[in-house]
Amino acid sequence: MKASQFFISTLKEAPADAEVVSHKLMMRAGLIKRLGAGIYNYMPMGLRVIRKVENIIREEMNRAGAVELLMPVVQPAELWQETGRFEKMGPELLRVKDRHERDFIIQPTSEEVITDIARQELRSYRSLPKNFYHIQTKFRDERRPRFGLMRGREFTMKDAYSFDRDEASAGKSYEQMYAAYQRIFERLGLTYRAVAADTGAIGGDRSHEFQVIADTGEDALIYCPNSDYAANIELAEALPLITTRGAATKPLTKTPTPGKSTCEDVAALLGVPLQTTVKSLVLATDEKNEAGDVLKSTVWLLLVRGDHQLNEVKAGKVPGLKDGYRFATVAEIEDHFGCKPGYLGPIGLKKPVKIVADRTVANMSDFICGANEIDFHITGVNWGRDLPEPDVVADIRNVVEGDPSPDGKGTLAIQRGIEVGHVFFLGTKYSKAMNATYLDETGKPQLMQMGCYGIGVTRIVGAAIEQGHDERGIIWPDALAPFRVVICPIGYDRSAEVQTAADQLHDQLQAQGVDVMLDNRGERPGAMFADWELIGVPHRVVISDRGLKEGKVEYQGRRDAQATSVGVGEIGAFLTSKLA
Amino acid sequence: MKASQFFISTLKEAPADAEVVSHKLMMRAGLIKRLGAGIYNYMPMGLRVIRKVENIIREEMNRAGAVELLMPVVQPAELWQETGRFEKMGPELLRVKDRHERDFIIQPTSEEVITDIARQELRSYRSLPKNFYHIQTKFRDERRPRFGLMRGREFTMKDAYSFDRDEASAGKSYEQMYAAYQRIFERLGLTYRAVAADTGAIGGDRSHEFQVIADTGEDALIYCPNSDYAANIELAEALPLITTRGAATKPLTKTPTPGKSTCEDVAALLGVPLQTTVKSLVLATDEKNEAGDVLKSTVWLLLVRGDHQLNEVKAGKVPGLKDGYRFATVAEIEDHFGCKPGYLGPIGLKKPVKIVADRTVANMSDFICGANEIDFHITGVNWGRDLPEPDVVADIRNVVEGDPSPDGKGTLAIQRGIEVGHVFFLGTKYSKAMNATYLDETGKPQLMQMGCYGIGVTRIVGAAIEQGHDERGIIWPDALAPFRVVICPIGYDRSAEVQTAADQLHDQLQAQGVDVMLDNRGERPGAMFADWELIGVPHRVVISDRGLKEGKVEYQGRRDAQATSVGVGEIGAFLTSKLA
Repeated sequence: MKASQFFISTLKEAPADAEVVSHKLMMRAGLIKRLGAGIYNYMPMGLRVIRKVENIIREEMNRAGAVELLMPVVQPAELWQETGRFEKMGPELLRVKDRHERDFIIQPTSEEVITDIARQELRSYRSLPKNFYHIQTKFRDERRPRFGLMRGREFTMKDAYSFDRDEASAGKSYEQMYAAYQRIFERLGLTYRAVAADTGAIGGDRSHEFQVIADTGEDALIYCPNSDYAANIELAEALPLITTRGAATKPLTKTPTPGKSTCEDVAALLGVPLQTTVKSLVLATDEKNEAGDVLKSTVWLLLVRGDHQLNEVKAGKVPGLKDGYRFATVAEIEDHFGCKPGYLGPIGLKKPVKIVADRTVANMSDFICGANEIDFHITGVNWGRDLPEPDVVADIRNVVEGDPSPDGKGTLAIQRGIEVGHVFFLGTKYSKAMNATYLDETGKPQLMQMGCYGIGVTRIVGAAIEQGHDERGIIWPDALAPFRVVICPIGYDRSAEVQTAADQLHDQLQAQGVDVMLDNRGERPGAMFADWELIGVPHRVVISDRGLKEGKVEYQGRRDAQATSVGVGEIGAFLTSKLA
Repeated sequence: MKASQFFISTLKEAPADAEVVSHKLMMRAGLIKRLGAGIYNYMPMGLRVIRKVENIIREEMNRAGAVELLMPVVQPAELWQETGRFEKMGPELLRVKDRHERDFIIQPTSEEVITDIARQELRSYRSLPKNFYHIQTKFRDERRPRFGLMRGREFTMKDAYSFDRDEASAGKSYEQMYAAYQRIFERLGLTYRAVAADTGAIGGDRSHEFQVIADTGEDALIYCPNSDYAANIELAEALPLITTRGAATKPLTKTPTPGKSTCEDVAALLGVPLQTTVKSLVLATDEKNEAGDVLKSTVWLLLVRGDHQLNEVKAGKVPGLKDGYRFATVAEIEDHFGCKPGYLGPIGLKKPVKIVADRTVANMSDFICGANEIDFHITGVNWGRDLPEPDVVADIRNVVEGDPSPDGKGTLAIQRGIEVGHVFFLGTKYSKAMNATYLDETGKPQLMQMGCYGIGVTRIVGAAIEQGHDERGIIWPDALAPFRVVICPIGYDRSAEVQTAADQLHDQLQAQGVDVMLDNRGERPGAMFADWELIGVPHRVVISDRGLKEGKVEYQGRRDAQATSVGVGEIGAFLTSKLA
């Protein structure tokens, strides 16, 4: 393709609202153009990248036996009312009324619609397993859309849904999708990691996120460099850092710590390691009657070591907290601890409190915690001697770098990632709500076992840029680049020789099926090179009169520090080997 | 592809709400599945057809120099307020509020958004001409969605928008799109006709509809079989059928016509040709002040020959009616004619009425019209003698079959069509409203000249079926068929020979890039054949043990009355020649 047949629009400066590098570079390279908050036009250059992502996904989904269809953007509310999501989902679900005042939604995903199709179309065990997918426009009315395509409101997603007769078969469907996702991200040329993720209320262990590795990623990925253990921080298991509780050696002492309410400040004041302190977090649960009135509330004290962070997802798995918890109110805290937050601890409670100790805290001795009195902590605290054993011992903290790997194969490392895919075993969550059954061999209706599998198509484009860029612009993997090769002729309109050589190379590459761009805009060399470095085309060939006089053209890869001189006669073969 | 990797779902009966054959067959063949009124899931079989349409459109748009981008489905109302369409458009524009109560619309087209892009991106004459297009989901909240994909609410449309520096250049852009549309419909394999269409308020003569010819089409297409004259009925010019007015030969006579208020009844009663009668239609126009109060109303009497129909679009072009008209109220009619509707005419008016005669009526003599008295008509009416010449003589009627062609090359014929494409010169309608200017060579801002070019992607699928079907099902053109060849093995699971032969032919065709389906579902032959005739695959090969024993397979084209026996060794070459 020649630039004159296309549309290229680059900017010197990114707009002020672009916070992250991918957003800045996508705007500067003219891949997207803002239409409203979290809503973007995909400009010609950006659409080419998106289509490449879509095509790779489509090929691998088809190869894995999934069948493509297309479900509508505007969906009647009835199906969403069947599963209760019409009411349960927050304002991120865009609701709309048609001219007859009937309720509709703009689809954020399509579980309801595909389950409706399945319950009508997959009537017999002979129709199963089946995996349907579509690549479609989605809308989520994010409260604070930002980061360009990374957290937009309108975006493109591939969502697949598998239907199986039993859990064993559903497990196979899950594995097939997992393998397909691996092939997809390999082919996209991205550095990624699949990590086990929490399954929430559905339970089981079949949920994995596919994360593109990038320092700017929002998610913390936990992995063991010596094994294949990998999980996101919500799920990654934190083993006790102290295997056996030491004997008490210090007396229980109330110590003044005026104005020092954090573990860091207390440790510094007392000149002890932060690892000897314990942090108190107060939660509450409510027992309700059917009308929703609170009959009784229970207050919970969760204890993690001073250098650790509470993991709220893990806390939600503690028996007693599973059905939902909230943070306690200041009134509840004062009522139970006789003290305002900041100096709380498990000793000297006014009213009964359930105590949950992190596995490490449960094995600590001679530790320091709040005294339930403003400006005081207690040192030399020991379980059993100074207070009863905790009601519950559980893993309730975030893993930290250097923690032992749960598989015993070394210590854990942490890297940052951007979630771009998710495979999830749904079980009968939707089939039960919508009565999606098939008839088994005996003619008996059975609930279908489902899985859902998403890939954020447009998000991948942002993530690829977060992973691949430098101060000059985007560095695409070959598979994603809007064009793989750009031919930059110097003086295309002035020199017949340059024009002929450029056209010939362009036509030759195009005939080979290479995505090639010939920049015939007539820009000056500096501006032209800067544009293509910004846009991030992997391979550049510069053709000039001066070079041609010596029978040479110049090749430079996007990551190369300098150009390579190549004979005019050899450039075709040279590129073919580079592109292979 | 093998059926086991795909999804095939046919129905014996079409659902009751399917009124037209394309809707019935699309439902029965499993191409679409209803989700709500006018909202359909595109099932795997249907999506394949849609993608083929999209790909042909995309290739020809690109070849014509248009550049693809993608504009959002959910669009902020602001731009639509700039052009006034947010307020002006009726309830077919789906309006939605986001979580912050800001107004958005679900796009029915994208003039506003593309003009917004153009005014920011196409700043100089050097950027022009430019033609952008996208293929995107559209929504129009039809009052009465019906006919499946033919008049759905959610549908897929290709819409292109050209930007030019002046009218001459815009004319070239228009011609390029017209030519591209011809190539598109040729390649789709559809019988179509491009007809000139009315340009409404924008004026000029550059508007053409692309109509797929089908007896069931909603539109009447007028054409001259001896020339290239073609227009839709709104535009097609009706010449006077009487070139010179004859002399008066009959006396003016009030004639009783009790209970006969239509021209047909009057002609029958009096035993005269319908062509001697004149039909009266009463319109009104209002003069308003700035506040919108009606200052003065004018009543208009429009006269067409008894066998003709008023053309409301043409009426709207009559001087004095151009700025909008309405049908007169009964009170206005009684006030001006002294009579209720049914027996109206131009003689003996109570108050002044503007009289508009169709070209043919203006040349009639000795004609019959209402007497402005219940149960009476007047015969022997002559212009000049019995009443003044009409205030206006104009073409205000629909053309009928056999009318002289406006180009003088014969008589007009009429056929029915389904509008699937439209090319339209917009001029500065949107660029003016949104101040989309470019800087010319002198640095002076100039309004861009625009054109818009739509193709109803999903509508084409319905129209193709209206054009191509028989009692057994759909008959696709090769270019649109979900699969071009279906291999139907008899006893695929029972006979190793059949399986081997079927697999080999499948693999061979697939390697050649042919869209081939091997039906390995294990259906009985009758049901299997019926399915593929319903789905409409153009080429079928039946492989059976009996045939193989004689070294033969059976080929049958979808339109063929019977099968052809072909040697196993020759079937590949045989199909290749059929598919060429």
